[in-house]
Amino acid sequence: MAENETPKPEQSPSVEGEDVENESGDVVDPWTVTSKSAKGVDYDKLITRFGSQKIEPELLQRMEKVTGKPLHHLLKREIFFSQRDLSQILDSYEQGKPFFLYTGRGPSSEAMHLGHLIPFIFTKYLQDTFDVPLVIQMTDDEKFLWRDLSIEEAHRLAYENAKDIIACGFDIKKTFIFSDIDYIGSSSDFYMNMLRIQRCVTFSQVRAIFGFNDSDSIGKISFPAIQAAPSFSNSFPQIFGGKTDIACLIPCAIDQDPYFRMTRDAAPKLGYPKPALIHSQFFPALQGAQTKMSASDPTSSIFLTDSDADIKTKIEKYAYSGGGATVEEHREKGGDCEIDISYQYLKFFMEDDEKLQQLKQDYTSGKLLTGELKKVLIDTLQPLIRKHREKRAEVTNEIVKEFMTPRKLDFDYSK
Amino acid sequence: MAENETPKPEQSPSVEGEDVENESGDVVDPWTVTSKSAKGVDYDKLITRFGSQKIEPELLQRMEKVTGKPLHHLLKREIFFSQRDLSQILDSYEQGKPFFLYTGRGPSSEAMHLGHLIPFIFTKYLQDTFDVPLVIQMTDDEKFLWRDLSIEEAHRLAYENAKDIIACGFDIKKTFIFSDIDYIGSSSDFYMNMLRIQRCVTFSQVRAIFGFNDSDSIGKISFPAIQAAPSFSNSFPQIFGGKTDIACLIPCAIDQDPYFRMTRDAAPKLGYPKPALIHSQFFPALQGAQTKMSASDPTSSIFLTDSDADIKTKIEKYAYSGGGATVEEHREKGGDCEIDISYQYLKFFMEDDEKLQQLKQDYTSGKLLTGELKKVLIDTLQPLIRKHREKRAEVTNEIVKEFMTPRKLDFDYSK
Repeated sequence: MAENETPKPEQSPSVEGEDVENESGDVVDPWTVTSKSAKGVDYDKLITRFGSQKIEPELLQRMEKVTGKPLHHLLKREIFFSQRDLSQILDSYEQGKPFFLYTGRGPSSEAMHLGHLIPFIFTKYLQDTFDVPLVIQMTDDEKFLWRDLSIEEAHRLAYENAKDIIACGFDIKKTFIFSDIDYIGSSSDFYMNMLRIQRCVTFSQVRAIFGFNDSDSIGKISFPAIQAAPSFSNSFPQIFGGKTDIACLIPCAIDQDPYFRMTRDAAPKLGYPKPALIHSQFFPALQGAQTKMSASDPTSSIFLTDSDADIKTKIEKYAYSGGGATVEEHREKGGDCEIDISYQYLKFFMEDDEKLQQLKQDYTSGKLLTGELKKVLIDTLQPLIRKHREKRAEVTNEIVKEFMTPRKLDFDYSK
Repeated sequence: MAENETPKPEQSPSVEGEDVENESGDVVDPWTVTSKSAKGVDYDKLITRFGSQKIEPELLQRMEKVTGKPLHHLLKREIFFSQRDLSQILDSYEQGKPFFLYTGRGPSSEAMHLGHLIPFIFTKYLQDTFDVPLVIQMTDDEKFLWRDLSIEEAHRLAYENAKDIIACGFDIKKTFIFSDIDYIGSSSDFYMNMLRIQRCVTFSQVRAIFGFNDSDSIGKISFPAIQAAPSFSNSFPQIFGGKTDIACLIPCAIDQDPYFRMTRDAAPKLGYPKPALIHSQFFPALQGAQTKMSASDPTSSIFLTDSDADIKTKIEKYAYSGGGATVEEHREKGGDCEIDISYQYLKFFMEDDEKLQQLKQDYTSGKLLTGELKKVLIDTLQPLIRKHREKRAEVTNEIVKEFMTPRKLDFDYSK
C-alpha cells in the first residue's frame, strides 16, 4: 500500500542542486519567515526552491480577458506573484466548469494586523470576480498544538478572528467559515478525508517537507492532513453534494505552500484533483522587511484595533524609511522605495495606480520627503482601518454563527 | 510546553536491564502476538516486561467480597491474569464512587472467531456485577490506516461486528458502542481530547512504545491518541455530563496494554485520572498456541458463523492434541493439558469448575482419550455458538442504531 512508499515531495529543495534557502539567507516555512535583506525575501529564488510558477504578464492578460473584469492591484503589483495550475482554473471557468476557493487562518491572537487582511481582501476579489463558493478554515486545532494556548482559548480566537474576516465583506450565501474543532467534530466526511490523506503520507515525507523531528508531538506530525483536507470538495458534502471532482483554487501567502505541495502529491493517490494555488508575498513589519511582526510587540505592526492616533504615532515613529539621513541628502540622492515601509504599505493598500506611480517617482527623485510619504500612508490607512472597525462592529454573533454553520450555499451541484 | 519533552514510557522494556522479549522468544504488541512455545506466551515474563501487576489471590478474594457475587471463571482460571490499579477501582466501588468500563474492537473482518468473544463475555460480567456504564470503541479508522481496506468497508465492518458484540447481551440502557469515524465526526469533545493527548505525546515516545518508524504513515503515528481518548470521561459528555474525573476500567487482551501505558503517562499531564486495566491472556489458535489465527484461514479458528458440522470437523481435524501418539502411549503417559487446545478452549468456555477439573485429571492420567476430550469440546461449543447465532439474528439494524447513537445512559452524574 501507499503508506509504505516514501516518495519525494513533489518538488524537492535540492532538485536544482543547490540549497537556495541557505544561499539567500531567507527562511520560509509555515511557522517562520525571516530574511537578512532589507528588501525582504528573494521571491524569485523562492519560486525556484518551491517549484511553483511565476505569474507571467500573459497569464494576467488572459485572466483579465476571461473574467472581463479589471485586475486587482495586488495582481498588477505582483504582490500575488506565484501560482500552480492557475491556467487550469481559468480553463475551467471558460468552459463553465465549477471550482471553489479555499483559504484559511490560524487564530493565535485576537490582535490581527493589517497584513492578515491581504489574503482575505484578495480572496473577496476572487469570489466577486468568479462567483464561486468559498471555504475558510480556522485552524484552532493547529494553534492549540503549536502554541501555549488552551484549546478553549484557541477555539474562542477562531470566532473572534472570523469577525474580522467577515468584515472584509464576504457573501454569506457563498461562504462557509469553519473552526476545525467544530467542523471535524461534526463531519465524518471531513474526518474520512483526513484519514485518507494521513494514510498516504509518511513521517519521512512530513519531516522532509516541514522539518519535523522526533521530539515533535504526534499532533503536529499529523496536522498537515487537516490543512490539506479542505482542498477536496467531498470534505463539504453539504456544499458540493458529495462530488469529489470540483476543482479548488487556494489563495495564500507563499509560506503555506509546503502544505499544498504535500496535498498535491497526495491528490492523485486518492483520485482527487490537485488544488491550484495563487501565492502572495509577505506583508513587511513596520520596522522593515527583515524584522518580525509580532502580536506581543504592538510597535511591530498596525493592528485592526488601532485608533487613528495609534496609526499616526506608529507610522511616524516606527515605519522604516528608505529616505536620506537628512533633508539635504534626500533631496540630492532620493529615497529607496524597495526598502521604504511607507511606500511598501501603500503598494498593498493604495488602490489608485497613477497616484502610487507618482509617489514612487517623487520619492525616488527626492522631491517627496519621508514625512510627506508617511502622511500619505496615514491618510490612507486611517479611514481604511476605521471602516474595518465599523464593519466588524456590525458583525453580530448571529451573523458569525450563520457563516460558521455547515449548510448548503447558493450553488447547485446536482447536475 | 509538554510537547517538547521526551519522557520515557511509564514502564520501559529495558528497565530490568534485559530484553525479555528476545529471551522468551515471544512477540507481543497490538499488531503481532507470536510465541515459539507450544504453551504460548510466557505471561509472567510479559508482566515484568510491561510493568503491570499479577492478579493475586488476595485481590480476587477482595473482589468477591466487595461485589458480593461469585467470581467469573475467567478470573478464577487466571485467564484475566494481570492488572493496573484494579484495587483502586474496588476502593471506588466500595466508597460508592462512580466508574465506567471501556473496551473495544478493531473491525478488520466480518469473520469474528471465538477468541474475539472473550473480552466481551468478561466485560458483560463486569457490567452486570458493578452496574456501570460501558463504552465500546470500534476502531474502523485504525483498520483503514493499517489494512488494505476502503474506509467504507472498515465502517461497514464496525456495524457488522457490533451485532456480534450486542449478541453477548449488553444492556442497551447502559452501553454506548461507537464507530470512530462516526463519533469523531459528531463530537468535538472527543476530538478535543484527541488533540490534548496528541499534543503531549512525541514521535520518540510512540516509536519507543509501538515500534513505529519513519516510513509509517502519519495516520498510524497519531492513531494511539484515538484509542487513548475513550479512557477519559469527558470524551462522552452525553453520558457523564462533562465530568473529567470519572474513573475508568479497561478490560482487554494484554497486547493492547501499550496504548494504555501511553494513556496513563499522558493522564496526569491533562489533569485526568489514569485508567485502570484488567488484562487477559490470548485465545490460542486451533493448531496450537504458537500458530496464528487468521480470518483468511478458516481452519485456524472456530468462527461465530460456523455450523455444528463445521465445528465438529474443525475440532476433530485441526485441534492440536497434547495426548500421546498412540492410545497405548496415551494410557501410559497421559496427556498434556498445557498444550492441548481442546482442554485450553474448555478452560475458556466450560463454566463448570468441577467438571473441568475432572477432565484435566482424567486427561492428564491418560484415562480420557483425545477423541473423548474433543467430543466434550464439540458438545460445549456447538450450543454456545448456535445460541450466539440466534441472538445475533435477533439484533436488528434499529437495535444497532440505538446502541450506536450518542445519548445519555441510565446513570446520573448531576450530583
